[in-house]
Amino acid sequence: MKTIKEYSAIVNEAIAAMTFTEPASLYDPIAYTMEGQGKRLRPVLTLAVADALNADIHKALSPALGIELYHNFTLLHDDIMDNSPTRRGRLAVWKKWTPAQAILSGDTMLSLAMGHIIKSDFPADTRIELIDCFNATAIEVDHGQQLDMDFETQRKVSLEDYLLMISQKTGALLGGACEIGAICGGASELSREAFRNYGYLLGLAFQIQDDILDVYGDEASLGKPIGGDIANDKHTWLHIHAGDEAGDEMDDIYRRGLSGKEKYDAVRAIYDRLNLRQRGETTADGYLNNAINAIARAGLDDVAYRFFVDFAHSLIGRKK
Amino acid sequence: MKTIKEYSAIVNEAIAAMTFTEPASLYDPIAYTMEGQGKRLRPVLTLAVADALNADIHKALSPALGIELYHNFTLLHDDIMDNSPTRRGRLAVWKKWTPAQAILSGDTMLSLAMGHIIKSDFPADTRIELIDCFNATAIEVDHGQQLDMDFETQRKVSLEDYLLMISQKTGALLGGACEIGAICGGASELSREAFRNYGYLLGLAFQIQDDILDVYGDEASLGKPIGGDIANDKHTWLHIHAGDEAGDEMDDIYRRGLSGKEKYDAVRAIYDRLNLRQRGETTADGYLNNAINAIARAGLDDVAYRFFVDFAHSLIGRKK
Repeated sequence: MKTIKEYSAIVNEAIAAMTFTEPASLYDPIAYTMEGQGKRLRPVLTLAVADALNADIHKALSPALGIELYHNFTLLHDDIMDNSPTRRGRLAVWKKWTPAQAILSGDTMLSLAMGHIIKSDFPADTRIELIDCFNATAIEVDHGQQLDMDFETQRKVSLEDYLLMISQKTGALLGGACEIGAICGGASELSREAFRNYGYLLGLAFQIQDDILDVYGDEASLGKPIGGDIANDKHTWLHIHAGDEAGDEMDDIYRRGLSGKEKYDAVRAIYDRLNLRQRGETTADGYLNNAINAIARAGLDDVAYRFFVDFAHSLIGRKK
Repeated sequence: MKTIKEYSAIVNEAIAAMTFTEPASLYDPIAYTMEGQGKRLRPVLTLAVADALNADIHKALSPALGIELYHNFTLLHDDIMDNSPTRRGRLAVWKKWTPAQAILSGDTMLSLAMGHIIKSDFPADTRIELIDCFNATAIEVDHGQQLDMDFETQRKVSLEDYLLMISQKTGALLGGACEIGAICGGASELSREAFRNYGYLLGLAFQIQDDILDVYGDEASLGKPIGGDIANDKHTWLHIHAGDEAGDEMDDIYRRGLSGKEKYDAVRAIYDRLNLRQRGETTADGYLNNAINAIARAGLDDVAYRFFVDFAHSLIGRKK
């Protein structure tokens, strides 16, 4: 096994070496989207799982890049749908170019992602499994994004619906990244399921932690202003619990039409009183532990097992 | 071989039997897009090619539906990009729902289309060929749509660029529909290429004919008002030739800022004088004949050959 940094360097090097053909107007937004030296969490998972199963990670690189292209495609299209003008401190593609350009470049990225899965160096049967897993994952992520959009027009969202949404929108892709690594490694059905569950549960922990950071995080390390979810009345883990347990007070904030810092402070005061930060962290840690339990059954040696335990903790960023 | 109507009935029956899962907000726009009893030209080609090669057309039905889902996905996303409020006399999806909804439903349709190719009942090697052909076709269509969008901001477009654009945007998909049928039928490389070229050349003939009909067609049978291309200064086959051969007069029309019927009449008078309708029809017929020549080398029996000759003529709608 290598370190997270080493896997991520392999991915970043391969992305930097990607060449795009004509027309430039189509591929410039794609190159822009793929730029940078990000953590590349999803392809790192794909490579690490393949490596843990003693597969040739150079063969797993093409599917791993497919996963990263796909992930970036979802961000590109989500930014248009959510009307988000920036991404990672830069203009979103639809703002830097146009919505039409962002739609088409995104469509092309989805097909390029599929192309990386199709053209991977595995026997036909394995490639069919990879393609099928990738495509099913993409459809599940679409379901999650749809639920997320549906929530925008709903006054109340149940915790159950919220968990379904994040399991599809975030869990499915992390699970898919692991499962694709497992298919590359020729995993047994049981081991494949263990890896998929690991990624899926990590996704749940990650999203709840993300909800917490949007209220309680540090703007410098987040790279974006906090409080965006409160400003947009987003149905997060915290918001749903506050609505269930202090509905009248939450309603009162909306009735008074508060905004800006006043609204943030008022909502945060309710979250604080209900101890939602700590309760959310405990819930996220629970999913994290479940993820680690899932991987414990994948039949890994100690070094590989340790890698995935460390990866899980580093993803949440709170060492226990 | 069956008739075009019979193949088209098989496709329409299968589309009517499609069931979509939850969330309804995601699948309602997809069901709406797939509704109706259209001609289904592309899947008809897939089925007919497979049938001509004595394949089991029920096995070719799933890839054929994938092609039709894909075609409708492109229309759905193109309507957002082109800001077109209607399609086939009904509201476009982005108008009936929202642009965000249309983006996501389109993304899902692309993955559903791929799903129909993946899950077809062929051996793994054949499915890889089908998937690869489908994906390469999708990327080529994206290139064509990009060129088409690039043209909108260009004052002049060369005939060469125009032909590249329509070969990618229209030719590639008709060619891909035929090639997918050929792969289903286990065609030799040579026969596969003959079918692809047939579809590709039909696409060129079809698009030039479409350009002509937008000026000279009959509103009742077209189902939309004529003159849209002239109103939007679209770089069509006619417009490019008029620009090359009567550039000063065309420029004069723009300088005078004509619009509506006045603009249409002025542009059409130039087209008439240059005899562009007849010259365009001759060019389209040339591509049609090339398509028929291509299919002549596919090793078909007389009945099958006659089917593809008739299909070509019916597509253009001008019996020779």
